[in-house]
Amino acid sequence: MSRLEDNFRKVEPYVPGEQPNLPDMVKLNTNENPYPPSPKVAEALQKFELDSLRLYPDPASTDLVNALAERYHVQADQVYTGVGSDDVLAIAFLTFFNSGKPILFPDITYSFYDVWAELFQIPYERPALDDAFALRLEDYQCENGGIVIANPNAPTGIRQSEEFLRAVIEANPNVVVIIDEAYADFSGYTALPLVDEYENVVVVQTFSKSRSMAGMRIGHAIGNAKLIKAMNDVRYSFNSYPMTRLSVALGVAALSDQDYFEETTAKIVATRERTKQALTELGFTFGDSMTNFIFATHKTVPATHLFEELRKQHIFVRHFSSPRIDNYLRISIGTDAEMDRFLAAVQEIIAQWDK
Amino acid sequence: MSRLEDNFRKVEPYVPGEQPNLPDMVKLNTNENPYPPSPKVAEALQKFELDSLRLYPDPASTDLVNALAERYHVQADQVYTGVGSDDVLAIAFLTFFNSGKPILFPDITYSFYDVWAELFQIPYERPALDDAFALRLEDYQCENGGIVIANPNAPTGIRQSEEFLRAVIEANPNVVVIIDEAYADFSGYTALPLVDEYENVVVVQTFSKSRSMAGMRIGHAIGNAKLIKAMNDVRYSFNSYPMTRLSVALGVAALSDQDYFEETTAKIVATRERTKQALTELGFTFGDSMTNFIFATHKTVPATHLFEELRKQHIFVRHFSSPRIDNYLRISIGTDAEMDRFLAAVQEIIAQWDK
Repeated sequence: MSRLEDNFRKVEPYVPGEQPNLPDMVKLNTNENPYPPSPKVAEALQKFELDSLRLYPDPASTDLVNALAERYHVQADQVYTGVGSDDVLAIAFLTFFNSGKPILFPDITYSFYDVWAELFQIPYERPALDDAFALRLEDYQCENGGIVIANPNAPTGIRQSEEFLRAVIEANPNVVVIIDEAYADFSGYTALPLVDEYENVVVVQTFSKSRSMAGMRIGHAIGNAKLIKAMNDVRYSFNSYPMTRLSVALGVAALSDQDYFEETTAKIVATRERTKQALTELGFTFGDSMTNFIFATHKTVPATHLFEELRKQHIFVRHFSSPRIDNYLRISIGTDAEMDRFLAAVQEIIAQWDK
Repeated sequence: MSRLEDNFRKVEPYVPGEQPNLPDMVKLNTNENPYPPSPKVAEALQKFELDSLRLYPDPASTDLVNALAERYHVQADQVYTGVGSDDVLAIAFLTFFNSGKPILFPDITYSFYDVWAELFQIPYERPALDDAFALRLEDYQCENGGIVIANPNAPTGIRQSEEFLRAVIEANPNVVVIIDEAYADFSGYTALPLVDEYENVVVVQTFSKSRSMAGMRIGHAIGNAKLIKAMNDVRYSFNSYPMTRLSVALGVAALSDQDYFEETTAKIVATRERTKQALTELGFTFGDSMTNFIFATHKTVPATHLFEELRKQHIFVRHFSSPRIDNYLRISIGTDAEMDRFLAAVQEIIAQWDK
């Protein structure tokens, strides 16, 4: 290796996420929404004044911030926006976790938390989930530098109670507790009201799942104004214009169509509940998923076998080779027709295996 | 201050960039392009398949990478794309500057270089430009951890020769030299051919100026495949999907219209040369600007006075209060009509001052 390469940053080799693009595929591997964005988003795209693209965006994304504030009944200074919730979470880590003490998140959770901690040289510990994939309160009552809880958790799909969240927040008044609600719109619960009760809570959400806009990269955080100002100060200090003008315009349009949002979300939840029942009948077990995916294991057929056989039929689900979860599949909820095709394929694979 | 805030990251307080929005204004303060994006971009926006927004973007932005490779006659594995050149430059800093030795860039240059260095804990030194605002070769021939040269430089507008760049690159074979060409399309020179000659050069460009797409946040880097792979490895390690689907689609469309690009760029250059002559006649001096702005000082009227008086007439230019340049104005090149209004206003302000 030459000396030039010696000074390159060392990172874990990249494992590309599978982004198949086949005409007959059923894509249930990245938790995308099976329904298109709201027709209001299409309208906004048609009406967008293209000439404005020659100008830099509004650094504060004011229109989107105001629309979010109105939608969630908070003040505009309680809202932060970013390039997907990944960007929002990374900025929150950078802003809040500077104590030198380890931050805490579960051993099984969203895979980028440890990545950002390492990127920003934040020490961290990962208390193990219990055998039912639930967080243990006592793990989050010791001294720490901050806490991150995905609720519902990924890839398990399991939701902690508000009582649990309150206990964690109250036990940690001197550090920030981030609640990552990427999937909360499918869960019937949001911790948003807690941001007005506690000064140490930030709730992070995304337009990528329930609002069908993964391709537009929009995420937001809501917390008390002091926390949001700190995040904005950090962001502005090194990047003035992260969001495109179109992200702001289309994000505002998506928020304006609450009926469509509720209708498509309800459809996905209904399909999920039906799929749960079908999977149970096929011999799968899983926690009570409150997301747009189900994290399931089969009593006899190994997850890797199911994964490979489904793949041969162009049905894509997600398998993680991590300890404790390597016999599970994460199955995104598609349309009813997609889930029917998936379930028929699974039934056949199980029948073949049992022979 | 509570203990909660003690752990917030400390940053320089944000000074919001002036983004006035008045119907009669002449906005010459942020180096935006006065002409709209290519009509091909409008077509692409009309044809964009909105339903695809429900899906995550292609992590590799393959369509845009391929279009850039074709446009600049390089291989696809020599092209990196990001959310504006700010994002591209930040990733390059993070990727290449890990030796612990100070990186080098001039005392007067783009204001984010020191910010990213501090963000990533990279030591840096800022050798002073000479009195004509040129870089001094000997400053870049000592041991260092990497070099960043904006060429043409900002806010001075002055271009270093290829001979100078080659001398710097050849003196530093073991570190990466970043050439930031945000304004190169207005200069008649690009260092792009050097990336095939030297393995330690990365050229960074943007769609924000010459391609009239500041609002879409698109930037790119071109270098040898080893350097580009290193940047992609770092980026992928903590952010899978930074670019929106629309940025990729509209960026490809912009690249497809080389005629429009050449025509609008030539118009801006012609307006710049005419403005230079008019400013000289009005008693201004400035280096030979090769960008879409002129960095000028007046022989008698203080820059702050001109700035304030222009502002009263809703003509916005940029003033920096930094040492050595606090009697200069940075004047973006607008349309001919905009520059006429600007020049008439300046003439009047000077006449009043001289009375």
